[in-house]
Amino acid sequence: MSDVQIDSSNWPSVNKLTAPLVQYLVDNAAALRVGVEKHATGATIIDAGIKSAGGLEVGRLVAEICMGGLGHVSLHNSATFAHWPWMLSVHSNNPILSCLGSQYAGWSLSHEKFFSLGSGPGRALAGREELYKELGYKDKFDSACLVLESDKAPPTEVIEKVSRDTGVAADKLTFILTPTRSLAGSVQIVARVLEVAMHKIHTLHFPLDHVVDGMASAPVPPPAPDFLIGMGRTNDAILFGGHAHIFVKGSDEAAAKLAVELPSSSSRDYGRPFAEVFKSVNMDFYKIDPLLFSPAAVTVTAVDSGKSFVGGKLNESLIDQSFGYSS
Amino acid sequence: MSDVQIDSSNWPSVNKLTAPLVQYLVDNAAALRVGVEKHATGATIIDAGIKSAGGLEVGRLVAEICMGGLGHVSLHNSATFAHWPWMLSVHSNNPILSCLGSQYAGWSLSHEKFFSLGSGPGRALAGREELYKELGYKDKFDSACLVLESDKAPPTEVIEKVSRDTGVAADKLTFILTPTRSLAGSVQIVARVLEVAMHKIHTLHFPLDHVVDGMASAPVPPPAPDFLIGMGRTNDAILFGGHAHIFVKGSDEAAAKLAVELPSSSSRDYGRPFAEVFKSVNMDFYKIDPLLFSPAAVTVTAVDSGKSFVGGKLNESLIDQSFGYSS
Amino acid sequence: MSDVQIDSSNWPSVNKLTAPLVQYLVDNAAALRVGVEKHATGATIIDAGIKSAGGLEVGRLVAEICMGGLGHVSLHNSATFAHWPWMLSVHSNNPILSCLGSQYAGWSLSHEKFFSLGSGPGRALAGREELYKELGYKDKFDSACLVLESDKAPPTEVIEKVSRDTGVAADKLTFILTPTRSLAGSVQIVARVLEVAMHKIHTLHFPLDHVVDGMASAPVPPPAPDFLIGMGRTNDAILFGGHAHIFVKGSDEAAAKLAVELPSSSSRDYGRPFAEVFKSVNMDFYKIDPLLFSPAAVTVTAVDSGKSFVGGKLNESLIDQSFGYSS
Repeated sequence: MSDVQIDSSNWPSVNKLTAPLVQYLVDNAAALRVGVEKHATGATIIDAGIKSAGGLEVGRLVAEICMGGLGHVSLHNSATFAHWPWMLSVHSNNPILSCLGSQYAGWSLSHEKFFSLGSGPGRALAGREELYKELGYKDKFDSACLVLESDKAPPTEVIEKVSRDTGVAADKLTFILTPTRSLAGSVQIVARVLEVAMHKIHTLHFPLDHVVDGMASAPVPPPAPDFLIGMGRTNDAILFGGHAHIFVKGSDEAAAKLAVELPSSSSRDYGRPFAEVFKSVNMDFYKIDPLLFSPAAVTVTAVDSGKSFVGGKLNESLIDQSFGYSS
Repeated sequence: MSDVQIDSSNWPSVNKLTAPLVQYLVDNAAALRVGVEKHATGATIIDAGIKSAGGLEVGRLVAEICMGGLGHVSLHNSATFAHWPWMLSVHSNNPILSCLGSQYAGWSLSHEKFFSLGSGPGRALAGREELYKELGYKDKFDSACLVLESDKAPPTEVIEKVSRDTGVAADKLTFILTPTRSLAGSVQIVARVLEVAMHKIHTLHFPLDHVVDGMASAPVPPPAPDFLIGMGRTNDAILFGGHAHIFVKGSDEAAAKLAVELPSSSSRDYGRPFAEVFKSVNMDFYKIDPLLFSPAAVTVTAVDSGKSFVGGKLNESLIDQSFGYSS
Repeated sequence: MSDVQIDSSNWPSVNKLTAPLVQYLVDNAAALRVGVEKHATGATIIDAGIKSAGGLEVGRLVAEICMGGLGHVSLHNSATFAHWPWMLSVHSNNPILSCLGSQYAGWSLSHEKFFSLGSGPGRALAGREELYKELGYKDKFDSACLVLESDKAPPTEVIEKVSRDTGVAADKLTFILTPTRSLAGSVQIVARVLEVAMHKIHTLHFPLDHVVDGMASAPVPPPAPDFLIGMGRTNDAILFGGHAHIFVKGSDEAAAKLAVELPSSSSRDYGRPFAEVFKSVNMDFYKIDPLLFSPAAVTVTAVDSGKSFVGGKLNESLIDQSFGYSS
């Protein structure tokens, strides 16, 4: 497959692809138990788990919205973990564009006391992040959507900033709010198991244009009302329960090295539930080893030789401990 | 999640949501191998496994119709049971409305020798059952669909009664017939694994508005030509092979109690294939412990504390015995 | 279920059912990373893994196209094989029509140095194969699609022959190219796990009109750049990792016999990776036992008695050996 070209020059508009999915959420608000409100600026605010119940299916839909209309997320039974019978599986038409160009929570949005990391296709219109230069991608479309892991609507100043940076009129902006403590939040975060692999691949300086495809899975964690525990569980679902299969171009040596370095167990901070790690650094995110954030187990296939390399492994006891298993 | 509101006042019309799914079945009758006939009353009768072959996919579609357009049912391989490699997974946008308000076979329809329990969204237009008062829900729409686990079309008197009780003209009524002995019947019955959990939750007087969400799975049983064996297997798929994860509001004590009481093993009638139990009470359904009808294994997550409680367990040897495994 | 009729006289047009799926592929070419070109003859040529990346999702879509719009293919995590976490599950509305009448690669297309076996719904318009007489089926539609496991576009002579034989104008023909070495190729070949079972059922002279339904699964193999290894792995995914559940009419004896004869292990050539078998006969396909091509494990349910018969078993060590597992 060495003659396959990964060429961002003909990548599609993630905002255009996502627009019908956002419209589906709005049109089926009652059936999906989400709240839809018009903000004073004209922006649409979707409550997917604050006052509105939202739920597992909403989380699945929001995950596909986050992935820029290029992702496929399913929820299904699996025998992998005895006490957590539900697994989330995810793959994408184009994992680099979908996961890094859209799904990654990379746009820092703040005003006074409001702070949130924006994820979803709207990021690709703003192109505020260094990452977009590397990808050589900038989207162009007349509507945009951002997903915020927040339990408050963004203030007017944030909406106006997003409108300015994306070049999209405020009344064509949609913000979807999925708190970490909600079911939809849990599902859409765990659906980042493939994105987290892509992001660590980037951190490890593995060439992004060598990544041909990938698929990944992780168990669905129970939500927690405590933000720290909720964040802990959704991270642990990936760190101890995530399994990714990545297909890459290039040498066997590079693929073998990636299989060693990609799993979460390659990090010095591996071994305890994430909430404990976070507390041990006094909640200072930047003191955590960035290499911790990745799936527990990986299979890396070098498509030029056809060889596969395996690294890491699933850790059921830490999943049980983190998810709060009581027999 | 204690501030999340479960409020039936804005529940959608299950008959409106279901209408396009029924139309899909009619439009693709040849591709799906179902028979479509106009009854003398004008009602549409769909044969999904009597003279027409129907099949697994038809069962999956009929299950989503039963769930009022709010259900998501998939068929997929799973390693859970060695000899029965296919699993059905189900979740819903709104399990209380979908499972109890639509899918539950609660409408007793009879005339002379004809007897059938109607399930599906049409029930919610008639509102004949006590349950609808508790739910505070009554649907309003100009077409209706009922699913009958029957191998005979309903007589004119039954169709006219359904028309009167639902307020829907006979020519806007659709009856889907899925005999217990058919493949579509097996699949759509087993797809009740989540509904059975919701119904037992109701029987246990656990407050329905504390149920936030749920997902469940069960193995696909082989159909049997003998009604008793067929009914036995579809029940056993749930009683010995069903696994449900339920998310509830309220105290940890209430969630822990639910995890103990919800699984089928909490019943005095647990332990033998359902067909044997049924024979031992001389086919008198009302002598069977109503608490028997529930999934084998449950995980109950108390969303207010984030704690999960596990009860029951899968029973592979009874699945093999019931499903008729011959090595 | 003995009164169920399997009657090819009302089978739908597989080309009509497939047309919207092909159109979806064309309309979303950039999002799916496929190349779309107009050939001089007017035919549409879709590159799903030669110069264009294609990928897993494209393979899934191409599989559903191959199955004549009657197939349902999903990719999901499974605990079945430790190092190959991704499974493909497939079922069909009508397995005989879908798998044998459309998906089977039965149309030999050659001109000078070009040789390919055409699969997909276009075969059913030409009806060149003996099989169609047995099925009593001939399609009639004004567009057609064929899938070629090839890394070269078919020459003008082949396109003109297909146009003549199908009675479809060249500008209404679509050829989808999925090389064996590509991700899309791997997925669409492994999606033949149900078709391979149907084909061996035919080879064993089991009456096709006794096959009511079926579902099957197999692990997704890593692609290989070497044609021999690639062909080996996709075959081994089925021969050592495939699991089929088939529902048949007729006697228990016939079903029990089928369960013994259907699995790949019933063949004298079973026991080594397929690439080794192929080399040992000096790449002479016709020296390989045709009974080798079938799933590793089968469950056959006799729907008239409700009994199930199990044969064969999964072989994880041969999967690891074939797929190139390196710890």
